[in-house]
Amino acid sequence: MRKAVPGATPTSTLTRMAALRIALAQVDSNVGDLRGNAERIRDFVARAAEAGAHVVLLPHMVLTGYPLAGLAYRESFQSAAEETLHLLAGDLAVHRGLTIVLGSLGVTEDDQPFGSVAVVRDGEVTQHNPRGAAATEDATGAVIEVAGTSLGITTASELSVADLVPHHGRGVQALLVLYASPFEVGHRTARDRLRRAFAPQVGVPMVVVNLVGGQDDLIFDGDSCVTDAAGTAVVRAPRFVEHLLLVDLDDDGPRAVDPDHREPAPPDPVADVYQAITLGLRDYVRKNGFSRVVLGLSGGIDSALVAAIACDAVGAAGVIAVSMPSDYSSEHSRQDAAALAEATGLDFRTQSIAPLFDACQAELKLAGTAAENLQARLRGLVLMAISNTEGPLVLAPGNKSELAVGYSTIYGDAVGGYAPIRDIPKSMVWQLARWRNARAREAGEPEPIPQRSISKPPSAELRPDQLDSDSLPDYDVLDPLLQGYLGERRSRAELVDDGFDAALVDRVIGLVAASEWKRRQYPVGPRVTSWALDRDLHLPLTSAWRERS
Amino acid sequence: MRKAVPGATPTSTLTRMAALRIALAQVDSNVGDLRGNAERIRDFVARAAEAGAHVVLLPHMVLTGYPLAGLAYRESFQSAAEETLHLLAGDLAVHRGLTIVLGSLGVTEDDQPFGSVAVVRDGEVTQHNPRGAAATEDATGAVIEVAGTSLGITTASELSVADLVPHHGRGVQALLVLYASPFEVGHRTARDRLRRAFAPQVGVPMVVVNLVGGQDDLIFDGDSCVTDAAGTAVVRAPRFVEHLLLVDLDDDGPRAVDPDHREPAPPDPVADVYQAITLGLRDYVRKNGFSRVVLGLSGGIDSALVAAIACDAVGAAGVIAVSMPSDYSSEHSRQDAAALAEATGLDFRTQSIAPLFDACQAELKLAGTAAENLQARLRGLVLMAISNTEGPLVLAPGNKSELAVGYSTIYGDAVGGYAPIRDIPKSMVWQLARWRNARAREAGEPEPIPQRSISKPPSAELRPDQLDSDSLPDYDVLDPLLQGYLGERRSRAELVDDGFDAALVDRVIGLVAASEWKRRQYPVGPRVTSWALDRDLHLPLTSAWRERS
Repeated sequence: MRKAVPGATPTSTLTRMAALRIALAQVDSNVGDLRGNAERIRDFVARAAEAGAHVVLLPHMVLTGYPLAGLAYRESFQSAAEETLHLLAGDLAVHRGLTIVLGSLGVTEDDQPFGSVAVVRDGEVTQHNPRGAAATEDATGAVIEVAGTSLGITTASELSVADLVPHHGRGVQALLVLYASPFEVGHRTARDRLRRAFAPQVGVPMVVVNLVGGQDDLIFDGDSCVTDAAGTAVVRAPRFVEHLLLVDLDDDGPRAVDPDHREPAPPDPVADVYQAITLGLRDYVRKNGFSRVVLGLSGGIDSALVAAIACDAVGAAGVIAVSMPSDYSSEHSRQDAAALAEATGLDFRTQSIAPLFDACQAELKLAGTAAENLQARLRGLVLMAISNTEGPLVLAPGNKSELAVGYSTIYGDAVGGYAPIRDIPKSMVWQLARWRNARAREAGEPEPIPQRSISKPPSAELRPDQLDSDSLPDYDVLDPLLQGYLGERRSRAELVDDGFDAALVDRVIGLVAASEWKRRQYPVGPRVTSWALDRDLHLPLTSAWRERS
Repeated sequence: MRKAVPGATPTSTLTRMAALRIALAQVDSNVGDLRGNAERIRDFVARAAEAGAHVVLLPHMVLTGYPLAGLAYRESFQSAAEETLHLLAGDLAVHRGLTIVLGSLGVTEDDQPFGSVAVVRDGEVTQHNPRGAAATEDATGAVIEVAGTSLGITTASELSVADLVPHHGRGVQALLVLYASPFEVGHRTARDRLRRAFAPQVGVPMVVVNLVGGQDDLIFDGDSCVTDAAGTAVVRAPRFVEHLLLVDLDDDGPRAVDPDHREPAPPDPVADVYQAITLGLRDYVRKNGFSRVVLGLSGGIDSALVAAIACDAVGAAGVIAVSMPSDYSSEHSRQDAAALAEATGLDFRTQSIAPLFDACQAELKLAGTAAENLQARLRGLVLMAISNTEGPLVLAPGNKSELAVGYSTIYGDAVGGYAPIRDIPKSMVWQLARWRNARAREAGEPEPIPQRSISKPPSAELRPDQLDSDSLPDYDVLDPLLQGYLGERRSRAELVDDGFDAALVDRVIGLVAASEWKRRQYPVGPRVTSWALDRDLHLPLTSAWRERS
């Protein structure tokens, strides 16, 4: 490893570095649950102490949960966080000599909350923060000495050069990074690239610990790691699970303490996304105090995938799936719904909407789209009745392609508290279903998702012989078009140059604009791409702009 | 007025300033409607030219509409805005010698969009922008010469010292401020105070032109004005309407050109809010291409007020109101709904939900809250059926007090595209109703809102003899409690010190936390306070934090 600059940290520069044992505590903390988070931190620290660690590193804002949004501005919460930190430090005093570095909530002199870093040792708290310090005219960042080794500290919700460079040339032997970086497809590769790009400026190994778990739409994947001085991750924690990773660091660089340590599998977008949305749903259910979920099971691919994910997230016994056939429901759809129930063992129920529909139609006499929407809304009403009566969280099964063009019935199939696949394009819905079935085959278990749900042409079944392709282009055209228009902000002219039919481009652009009001009212769900329709795009509701040639 | 610093602007400092005629064009522009906005600007400029103005000042981002949110990042839109600006400049060349200063969209060298200022004269465009310039290392701000007078220019979405001070001591004789400041209760007084506070640093009159009109949740109230050198507004435009205000400025200070110019009425929170939400609804309807609205009319105060506002916003002929009685609806409620219809002349219809309810109950056999919610959801279903069939925008009648504690049925009374009173506490709902009736009496017109709707105890009428007070504290307790807890972020301990019952505080805090998921799915509506439940508070959906003693 790169030698520290002579003179900068006199206690450690001229002797050979003894092995320093660092514990990376990749924790799933819960926003606002100060006591619970402190308890979790105590457990991880105790395990680290038992394993002989000199220093325990925990993620950005681990004590408070992240992101706090408006909660960060409540003085009562700020005070409670500070108080909890000191109580925790007292509890941790039993681990004599152990240094614990964790993220919490600080407040600048002009009342701005920020992600602070606390260093805890022998019951004492020293609050450090490069960012907060910058706000109070001290931009140098904190450096601590542990067992004769000089460690720089920084904290960030995304790695950036600005967070890391203050430590360049300051003689630290490693940089501790408290991180809160949410999952998105391709993000792990991007983080690896970023760390290698920063490495020449940082010049020493980086010890990066990230949050894991779901918080509303964000899923933290963990992916904590230790890099060598060239910025290459040489030890990694498993992703999508809590983990305590032990690493020894000496002049030869970092290495895993556990001789059986296995590198996690290289990123596979489909596997990553399946795990991310399963974790997101599991944490949303758990952290909001639910024990069960309910969804409508049509026999189509979207609800079948959501049911499979729900079974993986909360267990089949916690999943209520309701078949709600109408006169337009095909026999194969009812069979496919029943087959999924059989394969997974979830709580399967049937409630025909035909009598409800007939009663409404006797009064309302609706035709066309209004009649189609009425069916979807009666199904929504049945699911909400079950939720009101028995308490489960309602899951909405809409995918990103449908949501982008408004191909869903607001207050119908759009009802719910959480929408697991709202950021998944339809093309990937099929990929996820096939991936999940392949895992089942590998494990010698029944495939949860009926093959026919995957292979049949998609249909809302709200009128006789209806197919999605009556209203929408094929998804292998629509999805790249949406990716270009929304994900890459390509203009109409560029999209036509890309080879998309001009009339189709115009129609899709019009559908996107006309459906923003429905997306605003759609339930939250896990963000897995860089262009989630809620967090990233910020389309105005009222906008007269239409791309023109 | 304060003399300019000698030497800084040599053409104008030593001679007495001749009267400069400035036109303030308080325009209602439409986000994304470049052609329409350009046309509107042309009309205002033509009127200003005819009235002998030397310079026409238009608001921040008037050409593009404001706020653009994600639209500002689309390169195709950025280019189209630039192209439209140059076409507009060409059209305006007919007004020889006239200087037009207007806000548009610029992009910094590192691709960040910003509110730019364009100066147009004799067909030429000179783009200036203190903020954009600051981003490209030029923080001096623009100064233009018009008819021998030196004018500083700045643009801001809210006045701040940083926007104004670059002009201090630079010898300008007035400061032109392109503004985009949304309405909120008390904001006009705050703006007045702010301008007086800045005056010593600015030292010259300020010519402030603000947008007017609604854009999603924001309502711009206009309130354009010209101050003297002490920062006191001495000429003001009327609020909540488009207006061309002509002012002559010379060494004696600014004065209105129109001898009949009247100062707008001093701020009256109730009158201001009524006008703001009426303008917000009118613009949402118009800018989104609707011609009619529909709402459920229960006979209660909330829907009665929304109906009255709707009649004022779009005309009674454009308002469909549906009485949807159930077996629990009181006779007086049906009568009150009919009385409002009679007084206003709106399109009144009746659709009993009893047969729909009975049919659903024969299948679902719901009890308690689930049965109450079923009624509300069947009403939502009827309104959506009318919207799907006839095209009107559905209005949701929920008020802020209910929304804050979740006292509404999601997918029931919460359905809609726009919620006119979602930021109005229940206490103010009654004030607005009385204010509107008083205006009707003054005008010799029938009161739109039945007295009994105002005076009777509020009830959702979802079970026999139900009253809001069964579930909630009186609104004269609840509203101040919500104001303290959410508006002022007071802690539980502070609220108890304020005299609120501790158990009530705990219950309300719990209700607020448990209902965030419903608020997220609630329709957009006009923001009139500094703590709107969507834009301002940013509560996490998932949060274990509860205030403790």
